[in-house]
Amino acid sequence: MANEAMETIDFEELLKLADEKKYRQLKETLLELNEVDIAQFIEELDSEKTVIVFRMLPKAMAADVFAELPVEEQTHIINSITDKELSDIVEDLYVDDAVDMLEELPATVVRRVLENTKPDTRKLINQFLKYPDNSAGSIMTAEYIGLKKNMTVEQSFAYIRKHGIDSETIYTCYVMDEKRHLEGVVTVKDLLMNPYEKLVGEIMDTYVIKVTTSVDQEEAVETLNKYGLLSLPVVDSEDRLVGIITVDDVMEVMEEEATEDFEKMAGMLPSEKPYLKTGVFQLAKNRIPWLLFLMLSSTITGGILVRYENAFAVIPLLVSFTPMLMNTGGNCGSQSSAMIIRGMAVGEIEPSDILKVIWKEARVGVVVGAVLAVANFIRLMIQYPGNTMICVVVVLSVFVTVIVAKAIGCILPIGARVLGMDPAIMASPMITTIVDAVSLMVYFQLACWLLDMSV
Amino acid sequence: MANEAMETIDFEELLKLADEKKYRQLKETLLELNEVDIAQFIEELDSEKTVIVFRMLPKAMAADVFAELPVEEQTHIINSITDKELSDIVEDLYVDDAVDMLEELPATVVRRVLENTKPDTRKLINQFLKYPDNSAGSIMTAEYIGLKKNMTVEQSFAYIRKHGIDSETIYTCYVMDEKRHLEGVVTVKDLLMNPYEKLVGEIMDTYVIKVTTSVDQEEAVETLNKYGLLSLPVVDSEDRLVGIITVDDVMEVMEEEATEDFEKMAGMLPSEKPYLKTGVFQLAKNRIPWLLFLMLSSTITGGILVRYENAFAVIPLLVSFTPMLMNTGGNCGSQSSAMIIRGMAVGEIEPSDILKVIWKEARVGVVVGAVLAVANFIRLMIQYPGNTMICVVVVLSVFVTVIVAKAIGCILPIGARVLGMDPAIMASPMITTIVDAVSLMVYFQLACWLLDMSV
Repeated sequence: MANEAMETIDFEELLKLADEKKYRQLKETLLELNEVDIAQFIEELDSEKTVIVFRMLPKAMAADVFAELPVEEQTHIINSITDKELSDIVEDLYVDDAVDMLEELPATVVRRVLENTKPDTRKLINQFLKYPDNSAGSIMTAEYIGLKKNMTVEQSFAYIRKHGIDSETIYTCYVMDEKRHLEGVVTVKDLLMNPYEKLVGEIMDTYVIKVTTSVDQEEAVETLNKYGLLSLPVVDSEDRLVGIITVDDVMEVMEEEATEDFEKMAGMLPSEKPYLKTGVFQLAKNRIPWLLFLMLSSTITGGILVRYENAFAVIPLLVSFTPMLMNTGGNCGSQSSAMIIRGMAVGEIEPSDILKVIWKEARVGVVVGAVLAVANFIRLMIQYPGNTMICVVVVLSVFVTVIVAKAIGCILPIGARVLGMDPAIMASPMITTIVDAVSLMVYFQLACWLLDMSV
Repeated sequence: MANEAMETIDFEELLKLADEKKYRQLKETLLELNEVDIAQFIEELDSEKTVIVFRMLPKAMAADVFAELPVEEQTHIINSITDKELSDIVEDLYVDDAVDMLEELPATVVRRVLENTKPDTRKLINQFLKYPDNSAGSIMTAEYIGLKKNMTVEQSFAYIRKHGIDSETIYTCYVMDEKRHLEGVVTVKDLLMNPYEKLVGEIMDTYVIKVTTSVDQEEAVETLNKYGLLSLPVVDSEDRLVGIITVDDVMEVMEEEATEDFEKMAGMLPSEKPYLKTGVFQLAKNRIPWLLFLMLSSTITGGILVRYENAFAVIPLLVSFTPMLMNTGGNCGSQSSAMIIRGMAVGEIEPSDILKVIWKEARVGVVVGAVLAVANFIRLMIQYPGNTMICVVVVLSVFVTVIVAKAIGCILPIGARVLGMDPAIMASPMITTIVDAVSLMVYFQLACWLLDMSV
């Protein structure tokens, strides 16, 4: 999508400057730009130019640009620069960016990076690498401003001026005792609104919203989101502050989690990397397990068809309605399950709402079922005049199938959640397979009764 | 989901205090809490208590709590308080919250609210109400800090101290000339890191990332996200600053847009309100159009089944494989379309990537198709020994169907985007219906050729 800010950047022009080796002019133009755009520009260069351009950047900017680059470019740069340069960059990275990078880099490169990291930083990185994937600990960073209760506003500003440059955010400061227990939180806005001589202890908010390192990242995201915070403190099991989660990390997690849900709901294992960067075999690997499982499950539906073989040998027309019936059932079920799964993902529907949800879906099912049944009846009476009983069978089946599909579509995801499973697996493909079988049974059973056939 | 901060709030205890009319004690406890939690507590009270408790809140807090309440509670409170109280609240609301509220309230209540709004605020609200839904203008707010180039850092801090209390964010300040043209941006961090006598013009960043009021909110979200900003300035067509979009609004939009995509991808019209607050008829209305369309389309599939009636009259076993084949095709297509639609939604896949995507999906299709075909062959040879040719037909059909489904699943969403339509409508239900028809034709055609039958 085109966007305002980007339109003003002439990447063609920049590439031309690089090609013509007009490096001084290129540097001047680059320094005007945002780090994100510079990273995007570096990505487009050929590999020899990458390092030349990267080395142009002033030290303060280099780490920021580096953090925005994809892992291939990072590896290439790490392999091309000196130990001193590498050390400067790693020390300048926020620890969460450093950890993200180390988790992606090839092992040999990781070794070289850690060799050029100061012992303190290395210790911190190693500690952060240990937090389980998808935990609050895994997305936090260590660069925050910590104040003491007995500091004045003036002293706090002095402290922020001195240490703020290395902090990921300075706008929310955390007040701790000597043992790093979190005692309160104070924003720069609070500090600005109060006189210089006031003590931090007097203006801090002691009601601190926080999470522990081990909670799921989704919970951390929900908490930050619910309270509209710019950063969320993360404490260990003894209530000592170990890091903060900032709003930009949260947005990344929100996007990742939504993508994961889309993938799961389409019957895929979630992928680690973006689509265009995922290999063919990895994509295939993510897709095959559910396909195999669903393929084998749908032989049950096939079995049902065979069981009623006699019925459609007598009236072959009956078979022609099966795709319509199965599709409608599947679609109705998917609609309900998609609403419920999403509702649970954003925290709007809780498992305790199950009765409310079933009652609602039952009524929606009756309305939808009635409308579809009537529409079908009209069509069938026009298309197959004279076959009234067959029409009645089809129409009744549609009605019952819709209601059953809606019920299955809402009960299964909530049931999965109650059992501690991920509701997203009870989405479209799974529901369709189950509803297919049910709708065929309803259909043929109705046919046997109403058309007076025996199986 | 239980969350750390919430566990420490004893809502039961608070409700008990309200029941026993221990209002002084209740007030003391409430003032300790976050506005979001107070709003949540007020929601749980019966309607007479709602107003009593709301009136306990100090003026500064009242508007913040009010903004967090659902529209029913807002209406009830507005109808119960005095004109003066109402006016105070409305003046204290951020203009984006006021606009959101006015768009939801019943007309009679809106009138009373506007009557108790000061002329300037009313003018601003009316201006904001005019921005089209889903535009950047519709989610921005007017409460930002505007500075001048020739102000010193010291003067800026004095200005922020004076006006900051009413601003939605103070951390990013916007520098404008006399005609409100945006000249630069300066953060409180920049101000803190520079000496008091420095001029804003010297430290501001003149490379401002911004959007215009008319761009789609999704584009604004992407921009803020891409550059990791805390707020994004919104300018009119003459580059004059009219408002800012803050990070909390962006997170809300991200969640809404993802929910909308989930709904569309499950074949529903997107709903305005959360599931539990949407009425049965509205839910039914959102679901019926696609169901009707897809139901009628799948009669085409039924028609195909009828056309090949003769074939399955000879070998009834053939019919039993149709659900498996149609489901597998549908699932394969949904997988591809879900990946592509999501990739386009987060801006990772552009329509120009179409050849890359098709080539990737083709290869994934071959791998997945081969694995499923082999799995099927083994199962069929065990289950129906002796029917080798039927097995070959089924297995070949699976292989071809998978590849075709993957191709359709990636081409249709990108095609929709190219035609300016929403790619999300080319999701699971649509793809399934199309792939069903294709897979049946492939299957029966292969059967006719290989099993030597005539139609």
